Amino acid sequence: MNGAESLVATLLGGGVEVCFTNPGTSEMHVVAALDRKPRMRCVLGLFEGVATGAADGYARMAGKPACTLLHLGPGFANGLANLHNASKAHTPIVNIIGQHATQHLRFETPLKSDIEGIARPYSNWLRTSEAAGKVGRDAADAIVAARTAPGQIATLIVPADFAWSEGGEVATVPSWPVARACDARAVERTAAMLKSGSRTCLVLAGNALYGRGLAAAGRIAAATGAKLFSPYPFARMERGAQAALVTRTPYIFEQAVETFKEFRQMILVGADAPRSYFAHPVKGTAPTPESCEIFPLATPGEDYVGALEALADTLGISPSSSFARSLERPAAPSGPISLAGLSTAIAATLPENAIVVEESMTSGRGLMEATAAIGPHDLLANTGGSIGIAMPLAVGAAVACPERRVLCLSADGSGMYTTQALWSMAREKLNVTVVIYANRVYGVLKREFASLGIGEAGPRALSMFEIGRPDIDWVALAKGMGVSGRRVGSLEEFGAALREGFAGDGPRLIQVDV
Amino acid sequence: MNGAESLVATLLGGGVEVCFTNPGTSEMHVVAALDRKPRMRCVLGLFEGVATGAADGYARMAGKPACTLLHLGPGFANGLANLHNASKAHTPIVNIIGQHATQHLRFETPLKSDIEGIARPYSNWLRTSEAAGKVGRDAADAIVAARTAPGQIATLIVPADFAWSEGGEVATVPSWPVARACDARAVERTAAMLKSGSRTCLVLAGNALYGRGLAAAGRIAAATGAKLFSPYPFARMERGAQAALVTRTPYIFEQAVETFKEFRQMILVGADAPRSYFAHPVKGTAPTPESCEIFPLATPGEDYVGALEALADTLGISPSSSFARSLERPAAPSGPISLAGLSTAIAATLPENAIVVEESMTSGRGLMEATAAIGPHDLLANTGGSIGIAMPLAVGAAVACPERRVLCLSADGSGMYTTQALWSMAREKLNVTVVIYANRVYGVLKREFASLGIGEAGPRALSMFEIGRPDIDWVALAKGMGVSGRRVGSLEEFGAALREGFAGDGPRLIQVDV
Repeated sequence: MNGAESLVATLLGGGVEVCFTNPGTSEMHVVAALDRKPRMRCVLGLFEGVATGAADGYARMAGKPACTLLHLGPGFANGLANLHNASKAHTPIVNIIGQHATQHLRFETPLKSDIEGIARPYSNWLRTSEAAGKVGRDAADAIVAARTAPGQIATLIVPADFAWSEGGEVATVPSWPVARACDARAVERTAAMLKSGSRTCLVLAGNALYGRGLAAAGRIAAATGAKLFSPYPFARMERGAQAALVTRTPYIFEQAVETFKEFRQMILVGADAPRSYFAHPVKGTAPTPESCEIFPLATPGEDYVGALEALADTLGISPSSSFARSLERPAAPSGPISLAGLSTAIAATLPENAIVVEESMTSGRGLMEATAAIGPHDLLANTGGSIGIAMPLAVGAAVACPERRVLCLSADGSGMYTTQALWSMAREKLNVTVVIYANRVYGVLKREFASLGIGEAGPRALSMFEIGRPDIDWVALAKGMGVSGRRVGSLEEFGAALREGFAGDGPRLIQVDV
Repeated sequence: MNGAESLVATLLGGGVEVCFTNPGTSEMHVVAALDRKPRMRCVLGLFEGVATGAADGYARMAGKPACTLLHLGPGFANGLANLHNASKAHTPIVNIIGQHATQHLRFETPLKSDIEGIARPYSNWLRTSEAAGKVGRDAADAIVAARTAPGQIATLIVPADFAWSEGGEVATVPSWPVARACDARAVERTAAMLKSGSRTCLVLAGNALYGRGLAAAGRIAAATGAKLFSPYPFARMERGAQAALVTRTPYIFEQAVETFKEFRQMILVGADAPRSYFAHPVKGTAPTPESCEIFPLATPGEDYVGALEALADTLGISPSSSFARSLERPAAPSGPISLAGLSTAIAATLPENAIVVEESMTSGRGLMEATAAIGPHDLLANTGGSIGIAMPLAVGAAVACPERRVLCLSADGSGMYTTQALWSMAREKLNVTVVIYANRVYGVLKREFASLGIGEAGPRALSMFEIGRPDIDWVALAKGMGVSGRRVGSLEEFGAALREGFAGDGPRLIQVDV
């Protein structure tokens, strides 16, 4: 058994069953090992940002890491931006990066690079294997690192000679590392805050936003009158009438100030205290009132679900108490395209248990209100602000959950970063319906420029925000990558295209000019 | 004057007149400063790999750096892979990266990242500005660093508060740093080697491959019988009957061994001793015979042109001696598509002074032979092996040389990495003719796999090399980004499409299935 074979066997033994990849020459022995292990699903991306973003989407939905297999420093560098997003989402990912054979590193060859240097900023765990016999153990350690709460990025660099040399040993992956319980005094303190009668909110992150965590938060909110929030960026949120209602912190600072002004107490579960996305020459950065006491119940690495359940228990809330709201699905709208109408059309058509991926900062704002009380679904968002994650996330979510429909909502500017994801959707026949909100502008930038008090943007500044001239034809782009698409001109057409997408096999794209 | 204004004024004063950019909120004051300085040409890329690759292509042809303006850590990360290539090409580039305002870095906000960590592996010079009053000086230092021979990547990180605060001071950029003269003893030694009668070759890199450097090398070769080579990767080569004939080192190791077997002496001018691209479990890495003496005449940082001219002088070669060959332009071929026929068709139609960008490892191999004795042109290649540079390089070369035609030859696998460059070509109305050699496979990988002696690639391995299923429709992709394209099925059609591209205004794309 060579090092590459021990690597693949260890990954599979550790529950890593999907590999998002774009391999190169230095990874050929790993490819050969994968070739003989059909249990590992290999998904090719024609650009590495697709692979890392898909690994993020997969883990958010599967609750366990996928691996990536990428080619040397530059191949890995292409995946960094979506690893930035994954690191902010605390997503577990195991990156396997090939390296030149150790004896080749003496030479100044074209693809020689400082892979550890490139990997360090976004790797919570980083190691270069030192022998074929150590590759299996290294892979096991990488999986443990990735799984370590709240979820980490682990990067293992495998020199080609250690992949091809005999002496590989399969390593057993220790049982899943458990998140630390939060301090019992923090639970007591939080319970006292909630009983104080002061207007209180909880800001939830990570797995407090779905499943048992959100259920406990919902019971607490229902019993105490506290309001539930998420940060503006969140990894995954369970939504629909059956789930506790969570309000997303607004991106726009003034709206966030308005949102939080009523609260005197804020309890953080895995979240940081809210801050503006960017600094501003004049405005402040804390949207919370100065008088608001901010207290962390559980911090990253601690057990958010356990903390919320312990809190509910301390407050004497019955585990069977209900917080579900009545189902309200709007009728399909008609008429000309409007942002509100598009959100309503989505609410009217979204299938049960759909996964909605959302990266449409300017256009998608009304979506959460419109879908608040429809059937159950999950919502995945951009966590790190690096654009170009929606379509890769959708690839990963669809691979993780083949029985669920995926709706991917992307701005045109964001979508242009990783169009190659469309090809992977077609290759893998993933049931993803992609909606491109084509407003032909980096809308956020245009607004930010205006808010800085530096005058009107002139034609040269506008040429750096506006992405028309030429306008992008997304239906043609999709066709180019084997995805059928259509452009819709009314809400009826949009609704019909959504229904067609949700009913059909494989990916579809819908371009909406907004 | 704020820091941003001092930055832009200093860049312009230092001869940096083009900015390849994708800015974000943290760069808005720089955008505002650019808005008021029409002398700086701003070229938007819809992905940062386009911006960095274009900056590379620009500097290769303009002989001076452009700047990039990129958004925080993730935006810069997206540009790294093409900076890898630029670093191997020793291309001068000044990267300007925005950073959060310094007071905002205390907070864990979504876009916070270790920008210096991300930049370090590919920045020969790296600094974060420490005050508005220092930004101008920092920019001047960055330009000097970029210009330092043989050409470097300089990265300046500008926190938003230092961009927006008053107190900016324009700095004067010192005169162009001059490359060090090589050791006179090295010239003497090289002259003695060339006079020894032993079979000798010169391997040229950097500016030894065009202009005065190549002319001196050509005279030396003509007078001594030495043969001229370039490494497989090179940044820019002057070609055509008027230029000295340079043979590219073959990528395939066995072919390189065959190529070099006759030589007993090898003189390096800016190049490293040839080595295989990758290590192999069994094969060697040096394609040169063991008995071949390898001697560096000039190393990076030294003056290659001066070294070659001094060598010619020492050898007593007249500066007016000729090495030009007679012009031989083939007739336009006809019949079914073949790789040889495609190269001949290019040779038959290429306009004088065209710039050819080449990233078609599997398909473009016959090109250099076919175009060896046509009219003058320059050839730009992938220097670092990170695929996806051809179309960005073409953008930059076309911006640098608006009076010249650009022919961009890209493999389909490489082209998929940075398709967004097509949009920038359309936006800027660049006279680029893009040829996509669509073989629907990462051909290099398929061959490397076969050469490793690990058996036949099974269907799972093949699925990681083959990029068909679905086949990519490049004409549709181009249309999606505002570039008109056509797919050709014969050499006549290919020739007609080339002529159309060379005659028309703005970009065209030609898909050739090979």
